[in-house]
Amino acid sequence: MSEKATAMVLHRFNEPLEQREFPMPELNPGEMLVEILASGVCGSDVHMWLGKDPRLQLPMILGHEGVGRIAKLREERQSIHSAPLHEGDLIVWNRGVTCGRCYFCVVKHTPALCVNRWVYGITTNCIDPPYLRGCYAEYIALTANTDILKIESEINPAILVSAACSGATMAHAFDLCSPDVGDTVVVQGPGPLGIFGVAFAHARGASQIIVIGGTPSRLELCRQFGATQTLNRNETTIEERREIIRDATHGRGADIVIEATGSSKAVTEGVGLVRNGGCYLVTGFGNPEGTVELDCFADISRKNIWLQGVWVSDTKHLLEAVRLVIDNSDTFATLAVDKFSLLQATNALTAMRDRKTLKAIIVPKY
Amino acid sequence: MSEKATAMVLHRFNEPLEQREFPMPELNPGEMLVEILASGVCGSDVHMWLGKDPRLQLPMILGHEGVGRIAKLREERQSIHSAPLHEGDLIVWNRGVTCGRCYFCVVKHTPALCVNRWVYGITTNCIDPPYLRGCYAEYIALTANTDILKIESEINPAILVSAACSGATMAHAFDLCSPDVGDTVVVQGPGPLGIFGVAFAHARGASQIIVIGGTPSRLELCRQFGATQTLNRNETTIEERREIIRDATHGRGADIVIEATGSSKAVTEGVGLVRNGGCYLVTGFGNPEGTVELDCFADISRKNIWLQGVWVSDTKHLLEAVRLVIDNSDTFATLAVDKFSLLQATNALTAMRDRKTLKAIIVPKY
Amino acid sequence: MSEKATAMVLHRFNEPLEQREFPMPELNPGEMLVEILASGVCGSDVHMWLGKDPRLQLPMILGHEGVGRIAKLREERQSIHSAPLHEGDLIVWNRGVTCGRCYFCVVKHTPALCVNRWVYGITTNCIDPPYLRGCYAEYIALTANTDILKIESEINPAILVSAACSGATMAHAFDLCSPDVGDTVVVQGPGPLGIFGVAFAHARGASQIIVIGGTPSRLELCRQFGATQTLNRNETTIEERREIIRDATHGRGADIVIEATGSSKAVTEGVGLVRNGGCYLVTGFGNPEGTVELDCFADISRKNIWLQGVWVSDTKHLLEAVRLVIDNSDTFATLAVDKFSLLQATNALTAMRDRKTLKAIIVPKY
Amino acid sequence: MSEKATAMVLHRFNEPLEQREFPMPELNPGEMLVEILASGVCGSDVHMWLGKDPRLQLPMILGHEGVGRIAKLREERQSIHSAPLHEGDLIVWNRGVTCGRCYFCVVKHTPALCVNRWVYGITTNCIDPPYLRGCYAEYIALTANTDILKIESEINPAILVSAACSGATMAHAFDLCSPDVGDTVVVQGPGPLGIFGVAFAHARGASQIIVIGGTPSRLELCRQFGATQTLNRNETTIEERREIIRDATHGRGADIVIEATGSSKAVTEGVGLVRNGGCYLVTGFGNPEGTVELDCFADISRKNIWLQGVWVSDTKHLLEAVRLVIDNSDTFATLAVDKFSLLQATNALTAMRDRKTLKAIIVPKY
Repeated sequence: MSEKATAMVLHRFNEPLEQREFPMPELNPGEMLVEILASGVCGSDVHMWLGKDPRLQLPMILGHEGVGRIAKLREERQSIHSAPLHEGDLIVWNRGVTCGRCYFCVVKHTPALCVNRWVYGITTNCIDPPYLRGCYAEYIALTANTDILKIESEINPAILVSAACSGATMAHAFDLCSPDVGDTVVVQGPGPLGIFGVAFAHARGASQIIVIGGTPSRLELCRQFGATQTLNRNETTIEERREIIRDATHGRGADIVIEATGSSKAVTEGVGLVRNGGCYLVTGFGNPEGTVELDCFADISRKNIWLQGVWVSDTKHLLEAVRLVIDNSDTFATLAVDKFSLLQATNALTAMRDRKTLKAIIVPKY
Repeated sequence: MSEKATAMVLHRFNEPLEQREFPMPELNPGEMLVEILASGVCGSDVHMWLGKDPRLQLPMILGHEGVGRIAKLREERQSIHSAPLHEGDLIVWNRGVTCGRCYFCVVKHTPALCVNRWVYGITTNCIDPPYLRGCYAEYIALTANTDILKIESEINPAILVSAACSGATMAHAFDLCSPDVGDTVVVQGPGPLGIFGVAFAHARGASQIIVIGGTPSRLELCRQFGATQTLNRNETTIEERREIIRDATHGRGADIVIEATGSSKAVTEGVGLVRNGGCYLVTGFGNPEGTVELDCFADISRKNIWLQGVWVSDTKHLLEAVRLVIDNSDTFATLAVDKFSLLQATNALTAMRDRKTLKAIIVPKY
Repeated sequence: MSEKATAMVLHRFNEPLEQREFPMPELNPGEMLVEILASGVCGSDVHMWLGKDPRLQLPMILGHEGVGRIAKLREERQSIHSAPLHEGDLIVWNRGVTCGRCYFCVVKHTPALCVNRWVYGITTNCIDPPYLRGCYAEYIALTANTDILKIESEINPAILVSAACSGATMAHAFDLCSPDVGDTVVVQGPGPLGIFGVAFAHARGASQIIVIGGTPSRLELCRQFGATQTLNRNETTIEERREIIRDATHGRGADIVIEATGSSKAVTEGVGLVRNGGCYLVTGFGNPEGTVELDCFADISRKNIWLQGVWVSDTKHLLEAVRLVIDNSDTFATLAVDKFSLLQATNALTAMRDRKTLKAIIVPKY
Repeated sequence: MSEKATAMVLHRFNEPLEQREFPMPELNPGEMLVEILASGVCGSDVHMWLGKDPRLQLPMILGHEGVGRIAKLREERQSIHSAPLHEGDLIVWNRGVTCGRCYFCVVKHTPALCVNRWVYGITTNCIDPPYLRGCYAEYIALTANTDILKIESEINPAILVSAACSGATMAHAFDLCSPDVGDTVVVQGPGPLGIFGVAFAHARGASQIIVIGGTPSRLELCRQFGATQTLNRNETTIEERREIIRDATHGRGADIVIEATGSSKAVTEGVGLVRNGGCYLVTGFGNPEGTVELDCFADISRKNIWLQGVWVSDTKHLLEAVRLVIDNSDTFATLAVDKFSLLQATNALTAMRDRKTLKAIIVPKY
């Protein structure tokens, strides 16, 4: 192990990331140093890079979706399965670190809502030691209270990265509301989040999985994950899509509709696609992005709708997403084709911004 | 039993109901004739009387909240407890009649959403035999597939009527989302529906029950049902109420907020009173009544909110409401003070319209 | 349509069924006549044939798992999707007919427990018209309150029959307790019921599905339905199986264990395979079959176990099982290989009794 | 604050506890020192004192139900409501300390089953610093990862102690299975645990609460907590009690039956009192105490029973129990009448052992 670690640092919004060397950190009790093998570029990374997230403190190292190998342990640590961890182990970790002591953690058992939650590569900076708190780097230092999942399967790390954010968030959605076997699920938005929506709907036994999107190649990809029908929103009207979904559901509408777009227009359409008594899962809004106007009677009350916001995820959801990916690794490999070296991190962001790729993955040693 | 039954008939919207005599009906197999002992005047009765409900077919007999005594059985019938029914039994019945065969009835087990549901005193008319299908009458004829609950307790029938509609609807809300013991519940609107919200929150173990309303006497009444705090919306601003509720909940907001107003403005305020991960129950919209604008990020996603529309009720809910009233009959007696004879039915409607009473009850033999 | 219908009648226990002709029945209002295309021979049919079920009234027509085509409708009828039914439609129906009015039907929404439930081919006899109430026949007469599911897919009827009983019962089990994505499920007993256990566990996203059984060919078959590991109970000890399952679950035991054997010895073993806080589903006991001794502390309390009995099924479960079969029809076709003509019905029973087949199916026109 | 703390130490089983002075401990980071105001004597304390719990390591300080006042904080700490704690605050804490990192903590969100859980006054000893880890003492030292609940109400600490163990365990039971409003709940055993069963059933809206026990004074006490009927098991036979409960439930049996006796005979009786589809909660077994024989068909499968073991509790349950006690403090005061000074701790144990008191409470400054 060298004495320095390279990271790509966000110094100024909307400018290329800067390559920088950091000293290998001194580990605090319980901390570990992890060599990053693959790091996903999330849509929200682009958002942060462009300066649209006011919470950031610069300079920082982006990257909250990581898969790596334990390079150094300061003391004994265990995985969430209570198995001892060793140097060399392949691991994934919960990108969010929670306090385990607040009302949301210990009373309502919803650590995703922990009041003290912080996130690697989002709420961290690289001003103070140990500096390395984001995944666009050769190494990352993980705190003692980070939940660690050891990967025992043979799997390409690049395939796993999406589980850490999109996958876990969608697992959260399905933890809140799962289809019955045979149900109809509609997914709005065939991006990484929506693809996990398709994959989870399929894994939970939905019979019909209908995807609405605007990019033919992405819609096509969804079929590999279990979509039974795709609707191109550039080739159909809202009324046509509504009619198609009603026809497919004996006139009722879908049992569950999943918003995975981050677009408020999608919410308006989506609520209208839910059957009476069905569920609408709002998963795609990581940032302020407009409003939706709902009719209190027709959209909410008469419909007996369950409209559920979904905010990030916890370790349960990470584990579910990881298992989904491992159990379907060949299919998920299709999401891990656009790889960039660490020094190409800015190119990876650009490719995402310009929609040149569905998912950019940084492989430091690529 | 006389050979004629008097009923008050809605012939023209917004005009006095007309007294009319109907022949005692021939009972079809399984049907029963019930002598009405008390009939509640629901807010939606006023709405229908004023002609604001386009579904109505005139002439009709209003009244969907009834308590009565079995006057005549054509053949053996059983209560929902499988006990044989007899002439003379005091009964309540589910105002809605469901098919028991559709997707909502037999697959999703949500008969409140039955596609063939019809309702005594709402979707019925008095054009054809047996004519007597509403509760503003001396007698009502109940079909064979009407769910019957026999009342074995000694209780004034006037006290029970509210259970049949407001009570059952609120039971439905709590069936969808119940507080944990010790939770904080906010109720918007201290009308009959909101009062049941308070009563159910109290019955389910909520520690804090905060009611928002505009009528001091109604707010005061809520305290008898378990409200621990009341906020007069004419004496406080939205911001102040929000602040008060946050202060009472360690800064979080309420675990559950119940809309029982039918006002879209209340929804806007109410969503803001829910804690992250909490639930907003929309129970008060029986008719189209405006829209609400929600921020997709702040109100829904970041809040991880569960926004739940509540549409009418089924027999489970009726039973729960009836038991709640029986177990707290002294308190609920305070809702049964404004009684009218059958011939005064128009006055009862007027009193409700003019907010001269919280709850008007028609007692035919008053 | 001929004027007579052939049926195989159980006149005396443990003797060959007798071929008998019945007149085509007069249909009561709402009733329909259905031509049987395939009828499953259930393990409990063998049990009844051998005279081990004291409830039977002879003579009777066995057969409660049927798929057929509507031959005659007396009046308009709708499927559970509220679609009109027509002569010629391929249908499946809920073998159990429930009252829709009792406490279990309308209050607890558990019609499988309906106090008035009766079952085609089990609680019926052929003494009185319309005689034809079992599936070992050319035709069956279905009452107006039988729930009908129309099959719109192209599928061999023989493949569908198992959904009607084993499949629906297992759907009930998963309706009570479903695995999370990634969980470990153990299934005891690789018969038709256990195979549905494997298929549902797979459809709900379980990562590990471990089957315990004594017949290698059946264990092998389970792998096609998603089993990831099989344990032959003739080649392993209880201790070894327990050790294997603990090793596969980080020492914890399975999240869910499903008993599908009808053997009380399996229950003793099975409870020991459940992790703390896990669930044990008892699905295989259709008849009295011994007792199990549990340690109140170690097996129940300290384990925080959820032990759940599962009794028959309702229409929701039927629909789920049917959809599971249709969505995996190629795999389920392996259960539909041993076909018998109607006149060979006794041979079909014998083959099941002697374990010569996993599943015997009567195809009247075979 | 003096420099020494007195504690009553268990040196040898079945002998009087010994008074001993310990130095005031040095606090580790995050730890706090708490002055004990009241400490409950739990039935399991008697059990441990008598040497029936093989897990103990002597010498130790008993006492896992404590209420106290913060005497000294080493650094800033927050309550589970994220409010800062101060010296002088009245607090209750979760007797069990969990790791927050294992499968049960972070994946299944059931910290009561945490594999690293340890308990003040049970799994602790007083061999090593800080010595003071049990409640039979003037002071106790609480670790940084102990969940702290600040009590803001004016309440006698002696009234609160029962919430910390019996109350929290019963809250756990109701968290797993809660009655619907109007349901019938049977409680077996009118000790402290059973009394909380009555109180929670009442708080959750059960209409009928029937208690079975052998001590008339305890049965009488249950009525104050909401019991509607009590059955003395010395004056009725099992058959009579079963008949009474069936009569009270339209022949069905109770919706929920709660075992709170620790007697295996009670389990046999109790399962027979549950209606089809109902729930049997096993809460009373803190130690090995015999077996129960169940009929796989009649008791489990045909009954569709939900049999649920309940093991200890987590912080959610503690909070619920505390709120229940605070909301009903006058009633719960009846459980806090038999007080003993710290030096009388052995007398307190003796009184419990000899059933001279329902609940002994040690008040150090009594």
